[in-house]
Amino acid sequence: MDPFALHKLSYGLYLLTTSAEGTPFGCIINTAFQITSKPPQIAVSCNRENFTHDKILSSGFFGVTVLPESTDSSVIGTFGYQSGRDIDKFEYIPYSKGKETGVPLLDIVGMTTMECRVINTVEVGTHTIFIGEVLDAVITQPEAKEMTYRYYHEVLKGAAPKNAPTYIAEEPAAEPAAKGELWKCSVCGYIYDSSVGAEDVPAGTLFESLPDDWKCPVCGVGKEMFNKQE
Amino acid sequence: MDPFALHKLSYGLYLLTTSAEGTPFGCIINTAFQITSKPPQIAVSCNRENFTHDKILSSGFFGVTVLPESTDSSVIGTFGYQSGRDIDKFEYIPYSKGKETGVPLLDIVGMTTMECRVINTVEVGTHTIFIGEVLDAVITQPEAKEMTYRYYHEVLKGAAPKNAPTYIAEEPAAEPAAKGELWKCSVCGYIYDSSVGAEDVPAGTLFESLPDDWKCPVCGVGKEMFNKQE
Repeated sequence: MDPFALHKLSYGLYLLTTSAEGTPFGCIINTAFQITSKPPQIAVSCNRENFTHDKILSSGFFGVTVLPESTDSSVIGTFGYQSGRDIDKFEYIPYSKGKETGVPLLDIVGMTTMECRVINTVEVGTHTIFIGEVLDAVITQPEAKEMTYRYYHEVLKGAAPKNAPTYIAEEPAAEPAAKGELWKCSVCGYIYDSSVGAEDVPAGTLFESLPDDWKCPVCGVGKEMFNKQE
Repeated sequence: MDPFALHKLSYGLYLLTTSAEGTPFGCIINTAFQITSKPPQIAVSCNRENFTHDKILSSGFFGVTVLPESTDSSVIGTFGYQSGRDIDKFEYIPYSKGKETGVPLLDIVGMTTMECRVINTVEVGTHTIFIGEVLDAVITQPEAKEMTYRYYHEVLKGAAPKNAPTYIAEEPAAEPAAKGELWKCSVCGYIYDSSVGAEDVPAGTLFESLPDDWKCPVCGVGKEMFNKQE
C-alpha cells in the first residue's frame, strides 16, 4: 500500500467553529461536505484532540467558514497550528456571531459561512464526523475562489498539521527544488529556502538576516522555532 | 439561506465500484475523504437509489478510482448518468480487478486506485456514508492532476447528476456567456452553444449540422436527447 495514494483525494480548507458559554473556539479542517440536499445537511471531520471538538460536543452547534485562496496565512497558522487551550485565537481576527446559533463566523476573511445544528456524531478512531443540519448559509464573497488543500500545499507550501486525517509523520514537507540555505519550521514543517526567499523577503536573503520579528508564513511562529537543515 | 452557498465546498470526482457475483458495478461520486491515518480509513457518500449502493451493501467491499483532469467525458457520462440496471457500464472501459477484493478498478483511466472493506455504514436520508478500511492503495499516474468538481463544472461544463448530494433542481446549468443557438441535453443539462462549438467541433457549427452520431460530450447520449432553448 502506498500511503501517499490517499493524498490524491481532493479537499478544501475550512474554519470549524463553535461557541461555548460565550467564548468562541475554532480550528482548521480539510473535510466538509454536503450529504443531502433535502434537507440541507453537511458533515465535517474533526480530530478528537482538538479543543474545538469537545466544545462542539457540549454546544451542539458548529459553524463552517469556507476559506478563499486569498486567506492570510496567519489565519491558517493561528487556527491550524495553535490550540485554544493556550491562546485566544479570535483576539486579532474579525468575526461575527451567527444569527441562528451564535457560533463565530469569519464573514470578512472567509467567502461563505454556514451554521449547523449537530444531529448525529460518528466516532471513527482518532476523529469524529459531525453531521449537521444547515440552519443558515451565506455567500459573503461571490467572486472568491475557494482554497483547496492542494493549493495550500503547493502554492502556500503548507504541510498537514499533526491532527489532520491526512497527516503522515514521514511526509516530505514541500521541499523546494532550489537549494539555498534551508531552515525548517519545527511546528508546521514549512521550509525557508534562502535562494527563494518568502513574501516580502527577496531571494538571496540569509535566514540570519531576516528581521527578529519575522514569522513563519504558514503557522506564524517566530524564528526561534526554525532549525537549519543539513 | 442561500442553497448555492453549499456549492462552495470543495469536491473531487471519483468512480465508486464494487463486484457482486462476478459482475462489476460502478457510479460517479464527488465525496470521498480520508477519516483516519492509523489505520487508513476512508469514507464515501453514495445515493441510495444508485444500483452500486445496493451492490456494495451485499458485497461488503468497494473500490475508489481517483479520476484525473484528463478523464474522457464518456467515462463520466457512462458512470454518472446511466444506470447499471440498464447497461453494462464496463463493456467498453478497460479495468482490472483489485488483488485484495476483486473490485473493479480503472487503473489505466484513473490516476489512483483504492480497495476497501466496509466497516461501518451511516444512513443520512437520501445517501449512505460507507466507511471503509483501506486494504490497498496504488498511484497509477504519479504526474496526473486530480479532477476537482469545480474543474468538471467550469471547464468540462458538467452539471450535477440528480443523485448527487449537491444537486439543486433549479440549478442554472453551466450556461455559456456567448449567445449562439443553444441546445440543452435533457439528460445532464449540458448546453451546446453554436457560437462556441465543442471538442472537435469548430465555433459557428449549427446543431443541425453536427454529425448524426455526435454525442453529448458530458453524458454521451445522442442528438435526439437535446432540446432547443428559446
